Amino acid sequence: MEDILKIWSGEPNEIGFGDKPGIVVVDFQEGFTKDPGFIMGGAPLIDRAVENSEKLLKLSRKLGVPIASCNTAYANQNEMPYWKPKKMKEILIHGHPSTKFDPRIHDPKYDYTVTKSAPSIFFETGVASYFIKQKVDTIIVTGCVTSACIRATVIDSFSYKFRTIVPEDCVGDREEESHWNNLYDIERRYCDVSNSKEVINYLESVRLT
Amino acid sequence: MEDILKIWSGEPNEIGFGDKPGIVVVDFQEGFTKDPGFIMGGAPLIDRAVENSEKLLKLSRKLGVPIASCNTAYANQNEMPYWKPKKMKEILIHGHPSTKFDPRIHDPKYDYTVTKSAPSIFFETGVASYFIKQKVDTIIVTGCVTSACIRATVIDSFSYKFRTIVPEDCVGDREEESHWNNLYDIERRYCDVSNSKEVINYLESVRLT
Amino acid sequence: MEDILKIWSGEPNEIGFGDKPGIVVVDFQEGFTKDPGFIMGGAPLIDRAVENSEKLLKLSRKLGVPIASCNTAYANQNEMPYWKPKKMKEILIHGHPSTKFDPRIHDPKYDYTVTKSAPSIFFETGVASYFIKQKVDTIIVTGCVTSACIRATVIDSFSYKFRTIVPEDCVGDREEESHWNNLYDIERRYCDVSNSKEVINYLESVRLT
Amino acid sequence: MEDILKIWSGEPNEIGFGDKPGIVVVDFQEGFTKDPGFIMGGAPLIDRAVENSEKLLKLSRKLGVPIASCNTAYANQNEMPYWKPKKMKEILIHGHPSTKFDPRIHDPKYDYTVTKSAPSIFFETGVASYFIKQKVDTIIVTGCVTSACIRATVIDSFSYKFRTIVPEDCVGDREEESHWNNLYDIERRYCDVSNSKEVINYLESVRLT
Repeated sequence: MEDILKIWSGEPNEIGFGDKPGIVVVDFQEGFTKDPGFIMGGAPLIDRAVENSEKLLKLSRKLGVPIASCNTAYANQNEMPYWKPKKMKEILIHGHPSTKFDPRIHDPKYDYTVTKSAPSIFFETGVASYFIKQKVDTIIVTGCVTSACIRATVIDSFSYKFRTIVPEDCVGDREEESHWNNLYDIERRYCDVSNSKEVINYLESVRLT
Repeated sequence: MEDILKIWSGEPNEIGFGDKPGIVVVDFQEGFTKDPGFIMGGAPLIDRAVENSEKLLKLSRKLGVPIASCNTAYANQNEMPYWKPKKMKEILIHGHPSTKFDPRIHDPKYDYTVTKSAPSIFFETGVASYFIKQKVDTIIVTGCVTSACIRATVIDSFSYKFRTIVPEDCVGDREEESHWNNLYDIERRYCDVSNSKEVINYLESVRLT
Repeated sequence: MEDILKIWSGEPNEIGFGDKPGIVVVDFQEGFTKDPGFIMGGAPLIDRAVENSEKLLKLSRKLGVPIASCNTAYANQNEMPYWKPKKMKEILIHGHPSTKFDPRIHDPKYDYTVTKSAPSIFFETGVASYFIKQKVDTIIVTGCVTSACIRATVIDSFSYKFRTIVPEDCVGDREEESHWNNLYDIERRYCDVSNSKEVINYLESVRLT
Repeated sequence: MEDILKIWSGEPNEIGFGDKPGIVVVDFQEGFTKDPGFIMGGAPLIDRAVENSEKLLKLSRKLGVPIASCNTAYANQNEMPYWKPKKMKEILIHGHPSTKFDPRIHDPKYDYTVTKSAPSIFFETGVASYFIKQKVDTIIVTGCVTSACIRATVIDSFSYKFRTIVPEDCVGDREEESHWNNLYDIERRYCDVSNSKEVINYLESVRLT
């Protein structure tokens, strides 16, 4: 896979890992991750992303890597942007089970936790300034879905001039084609597409302060 | 085309035009729009977008519709985000011919003009607050390229809670598949995909104040 | 008072009320508003501001004026900016009584409610985009304290290019001199300083849509 | 002076310098710095700030400290926020001599240079992300005027969670009382107030990478 992506981009100059990693965990909430219960849940690529992210995050908390986690929820439709999907407007409401952080993934005592209103975890949240305080220069992106909130998060991480790394097996989508199309778009422009094994190697090697 | 997009989204609830339109013109700079001269220039879908946007903008200026135009340029690589494409890092430098606004499109006396550093025309520019002052509630998106800066601009327009309309024939890409893949992603979530004829009908009908 | 402020600014060109008001309610949380209980509470100018804002907000909810309310709170010191006041770092923690919204002021069913991390209600919150969706062009600023979060909120409201109005009797400070010094600074540059009576007259006259 | 400020704040816990400094230079443009020529120019505290900043910046460029410089200018009144001062609206126009960067201070080849629209150098500019890329954790604030754009810049630097240091003799105001009132407000909450000698000692001691 990695080889294919390098061919896609045709760009030998990888961004590379920096000195201080931080991890974002985007929308691993039960409406998207829980198996048969929700109209938006239960996709194989998302299940895989949850599994790999769980391992990555467990290690990261042991190592002291800063983590920012988010879900998407609103008080009412009045506060939402102009979402097209009817279903989302009905269920992404505070207190609805679809907005519950997946407990396999989320540690409310460790993670910097925000509820976002827009696709990107950085948009109108404290996440950028949180990472400034932690002196983070490298953002590892995990979560779902690749063709929506992951794409938006990668664009913003790049725009804030962080080094941006996407472990491909830690992000997922309901549609396999959309997953790969979006990785193609972002890998050739904004980020390195890597995998959880490479990221874990890096995290274990970096000296955190 | 429109019918296909509606099938794609499966969502009958269109966003619709609002009371006060504003137009963004993204990266119609000669490095992307000029025919054979540049490594990034000369794509049929971009030529088509320039042609249709030119008509749309000429009318809009006559009607008094607020327009924000941008290019992408930097003083040096030190000020750039971590772009992957080697070529972009070399040529998107202030003064380089690739950064020149296409004169078919740009009116420096009329347009609110910014030079942006990130994919979205809204990121760290004054464009959002400019439209707040103009009381705009509906953003018409034109420019290039669909799979990069148009995609990012649409996400931000949506995130700022504007109604977002993309006339499909006013945005372009070097790759036809990427153009349609990205319209698919954004149309089912963040915006209405329309065309220049529909937009012109709307602009002629709305009472601007 | 009003006359004095006009002399201060020496500027005849007032900003004036616009077509669509929105109200921000800054940090009326019990750590600042409750009488003898808290080290930061119990100041006469703040009591007065609570009383006048209560009336203004009651009417505004009846009229359907959009309201955004905030408190300031953090999960832990790690997530805070570099606050100087030791006491604030200890008590502005989620769940601490000092962070509770004052029930005289706050209506969680009506208000768009955010918890902010920085002095301004606009900084890294959804408040600007909430007002974009409500088509607000005029921000009425209430809350505390004048020399800190009100000052910061006024600067941001101005920066986002809203018309900004501060009813002087709806904002308060623990120190009377700081209250007036800061009104002096902002009135001559960024906003009109008005009072709750004038603002109520305006709200009753404007046609809300 | 320093002693007085420490008494003001009553807070022993200073923020302190961090590992990697960056400097912002706010609005040292000829309309504010040039002696008798402009209605806003020619104040003793600003002359002093120019003189001390010139030394500080000369050294900083030799040491390789990242510097972001700004002026304030607009294409026309339509693009401005609702400024109160009539004079500013007339002269802060691109090309007007009042908007020219003071050549004693500005090095366009070295400094990251932006034209801002709002009081803070951080508002809708690329300055925050520029410092993210440079891994800056400590912002040294220089420029004018203390009671307006310096105040706003300090609030934003604090809000982005940088360590914020204001060398008092590198910022100035036309009114001495406003200068001290604003230092009082910010020193007790958001930043350390220091002086150019202390800052130079720090810059000479820090190992820049």
